[in-house]
Amino acid sequence: MDDSQQRIAEGILFTDMYQITMAQLYFRMGLHEKDVLFDHFFRSYPDYGHHKAGYCVNAGLEWLLTWMQSAHFSTEDIDYLRAQTGRTGKPIFDEDFLAWLAAHGNFDGITMYAIPEGRVVHPHVPLTVVQGPLIMAQILESSLLNHLNYQTLIATKAARMRQSARSSLLLEFGVRRGQGMGANAGARAALIGGADFTSNVGISRVLGYPPQGTHAHSMVQVFMALGMGELEAFRAYADVYSDNCLLLVDTIDTLKSGIPNAISVFEDLRRKGYEPVGIRLDSGDLAYLSIQAARMLDDAGFPDTSIVLSNNLDELVIWQILTQIRDEAPRWGVEPDHLIKRLAFGVGTRLVTSWGEPALGGVYKLVAVRDADRWVPAIKLSESSAKTPTPGQKRVWRVYDRRGTATADLLTLEEEDPLTMPEIVLHHPSDHTKCRTLKQVDISEIEPLLVKTLDQGRLVYDLPSIEAMRDQRQLDVDRLDPGVRRLLNPHIYHVSLTETLWKLKNDLIVSVAART
Amino acid sequence: MDDSQQRIAEGILFTDMYQITMAQLYFRMGLHEKDVLFDHFFRSYPDYGHHKAGYCVNAGLEWLLTWMQSAHFSTEDIDYLRAQTGRTGKPIFDEDFLAWLAAHGNFDGITMYAIPEGRVVHPHVPLTVVQGPLIMAQILESSLLNHLNYQTLIATKAARMRQSARSSLLLEFGVRRGQGMGANAGARAALIGGADFTSNVGISRVLGYPPQGTHAHSMVQVFMALGMGELEAFRAYADVYSDNCLLLVDTIDTLKSGIPNAISVFEDLRRKGYEPVGIRLDSGDLAYLSIQAARMLDDAGFPDTSIVLSNNLDELVIWQILTQIRDEAPRWGVEPDHLIKRLAFGVGTRLVTSWGEPALGGVYKLVAVRDADRWVPAIKLSESSAKTPTPGQKRVWRVYDRRGTATADLLTLEEEDPLTMPEIVLHHPSDHTKCRTLKQVDISEIEPLLVKTLDQGRLVYDLPSIEAMRDQRQLDVDRLDPGVRRLLNPHIYHVSLTETLWKLKNDLIVSVAART
Repeated sequence: MDDSQQRIAEGILFTDMYQITMAQLYFRMGLHEKDVLFDHFFRSYPDYGHHKAGYCVNAGLEWLLTWMQSAHFSTEDIDYLRAQTGRTGKPIFDEDFLAWLAAHGNFDGITMYAIPEGRVVHPHVPLTVVQGPLIMAQILESSLLNHLNYQTLIATKAARMRQSARSSLLLEFGVRRGQGMGANAGARAALIGGADFTSNVGISRVLGYPPQGTHAHSMVQVFMALGMGELEAFRAYADVYSDNCLLLVDTIDTLKSGIPNAISVFEDLRRKGYEPVGIRLDSGDLAYLSIQAARMLDDAGFPDTSIVLSNNLDELVIWQILTQIRDEAPRWGVEPDHLIKRLAFGVGTRLVTSWGEPALGGVYKLVAVRDADRWVPAIKLSESSAKTPTPGQKRVWRVYDRRGTATADLLTLEEEDPLTMPEIVLHHPSDHTKCRTLKQVDISEIEPLLVKTLDQGRLVYDLPSIEAMRDQRQLDVDRLDPGVRRLLNPHIYHVSLTETLWKLKNDLIVSVAART
Repeated sequence: MDDSQQRIAEGILFTDMYQITMAQLYFRMGLHEKDVLFDHFFRSYPDYGHHKAGYCVNAGLEWLLTWMQSAHFSTEDIDYLRAQTGRTGKPIFDEDFLAWLAAHGNFDGITMYAIPEGRVVHPHVPLTVVQGPLIMAQILESSLLNHLNYQTLIATKAARMRQSARSSLLLEFGVRRGQGMGANAGARAALIGGADFTSNVGISRVLGYPPQGTHAHSMVQVFMALGMGELEAFRAYADVYSDNCLLLVDTIDTLKSGIPNAISVFEDLRRKGYEPVGIRLDSGDLAYLSIQAARMLDDAGFPDTSIVLSNNLDELVIWQILTQIRDEAPRWGVEPDHLIKRLAFGVGTRLVTSWGEPALGGVYKLVAVRDADRWVPAIKLSESSAKTPTPGQKRVWRVYDRRGTATADLLTLEEEDPLTMPEIVLHHPSDHTKCRTLKQVDISEIEPLLVKTLDQGRLVYDLPSIEAMRDQRQLDVDRLDPGVRRLLNPHIYHVSLTETLWKLKNDLIVSVAART
């Protein structure tokens, strides 16, 4: 794909064909500029095999907004649509519709509310609310879901790795295992979710983070092939990077060759007045090897060098390594807390692919259509009531209990204000038997979550820095109940509807069901 | 990320930082233009939980070649590297190295051999062989792996779905669940692997395939919110797309509402002289519902309309649906073969993410360094002998038995020619106990697999069309033993080394191990 092809494939045609066939139908029916509301939300947390997440971290908004601001139907795009034919060879799209698309086929009419990136988010809560003319709100669906699903998936996975790695450095290494250039979106989301740096140079440059990395096995192999060995390779590296010497020690044999050679080079460095940075382990039993490495480095007088671990790490493997170190290090004479403090984790495949659950099932559902001055709620019945979206124009609030812990996300009708309610009745979104009541005295804060990002296509939102998103994520994670944020079998966080909204949803379901 | 940021993030800096730190070391040591060979290969087939693949389908080469032909270190890239500092605030990269990169930092010196896209491929076989100056061959690693790993992963998954869907139409629907713009790479690979069309409009345009799609639930919801119903929505759709009417029937209730309404609209269409295309089912028990749909459509006089199935389909779900239809359709008076012939499958999430195994572990390993006129084989010892790459400059052959079935992929030294060997001794790449001998009389064909794609950076390869890749894939799959291509618990295909190559590898391992 050359540059011009890439512009085509990543522009407004980065969508599903049915969006455009529906668009023409709306145009033909005179509904194309009908004001509508779509909610974007996901229905369940990622479930990585045996360990379902208890929260997600929202991400992807800024790149979606940038895409929306330049995407439009160009003359070439229109020509392409004009050439599409159906079964009988007749054109699928008519000239009047194509003329409308050429003139109005952009996102200038869209108003959008969204929960900011870096915020902790939960199922069934509208993360993004799109208001605007039916055609363009509909065409937006595919790209919106693409931009938000993946980055939220990865920010969530990174937040879990951040949690299990505790205060250790967390490095994103996934560029070779991502989906093409999607690896850049993954690296960005990883930073939002809790990775400290990425090895990906280009995205580091764009986001203003210093890229991280030292050397690979191939460097040692080159020296070996030329009749030298690991020690010469390490020496050469230490000469060039005296201030930043971190050596990969598992090309030949970690304990017999790599670490002894690294120590020898570190000693040379120190004689020359430099302090070595550390070593990286990329294979074998990382818990055992890091204890042995710490022991050898301690004995040689390098107790503060870093030990970077990599090789198919994820939140559970990191947790297991730390547990094993706590259990085993003492009998080797290594102080576990000291060892853990010097660890860093490089995470590649299992972060960039969200190993165990490689997609977030975010959806984009019509929830209201404006008829004259009134928003008419829209509904879709599904095989299970848990999948039926909550209709209508809504607001989203986070309710904190007296301890300052987030206790529920609350969906209300647009005109409802939970701040003025003497008590709040929280209804489960689909299970009518589940309901609880919160008195204002039990509440320390009620926070609106949606912010206006686009007003008729115009950006009205100060895009936060990645650093601000990271701070927000940490703040939100800290305000979760520890049971909700634990890695295995988490408590279920409450997402609730007010009495009025619950009744609206229920009445609509009953009335539609009665008609069939 | 705006356009100029995207160009940066997708250019030559789309790599890992350690490639550039190693590059400077090679420069400093005077090794930067040393001629080297890297092999790209994967070590094991994707293992989707309980069903490991028995073969892969190669893909991604063309996009890699396009990337390589434009990627280079621009002035801005160099300025960025110049600004990188280490722990002590000193610049990481020196001016002489940056000047070399500015002048020579492109892939003009690279010669590349590769197995064409669409070919069936196996573990431990070099799929891509890169020869060129050490610095640039090294910097290429991350992007090469990114481009080839993902598309091969998806072409493989698509080939499995193609296999279980047999002759039914297979449609790629994954744009909303891919990793950002990586979804385009996924759609391309899906076409190579066996999807017939994609819903993704932009990539369809670039690749010259007509995009596919009809309508979503939201269309029906709009009509309902405006006081009309599913029937009115279907009528409107049929009016606009009389020649191409395919209706999604599960917005309200598939059997009670959707199919009866569709039939009523189909009857109107027929009265007007049009034949309807069919229906789509997107929820519920798809096997049961497709039998009921077939029964209702048959009874109404529409026995040839398509029934498109979608909703989390993968190769096993498709297989299960077809099995259930074969078992259950007769007792509903539906002829299974006739029903199966009218089915089409829309595959989204589970194709674009390669559900069950979302990454292919392709690696890129130094295998030889040229010293004077001689290629010196390079080796990397690992914790397991199965992970030790096969060293040296090699050739790759596919050996077909008397039936014309592929029986082994054979790696030889560059100077070996299996066509002239009276018999071929096939050694397992790592298990010394496994060995078999093939006589020429047992062999119908020995086919070289690698073709030259780049000669000193110049494209010397006629890029095949997607259609040609699809034909090649089908041909290769047909020439696999049925046991190798079955979906569950496949036979192991043999990848073998010649006696000479086996001895080279073994001697090198022993000599390096002896030195530690």
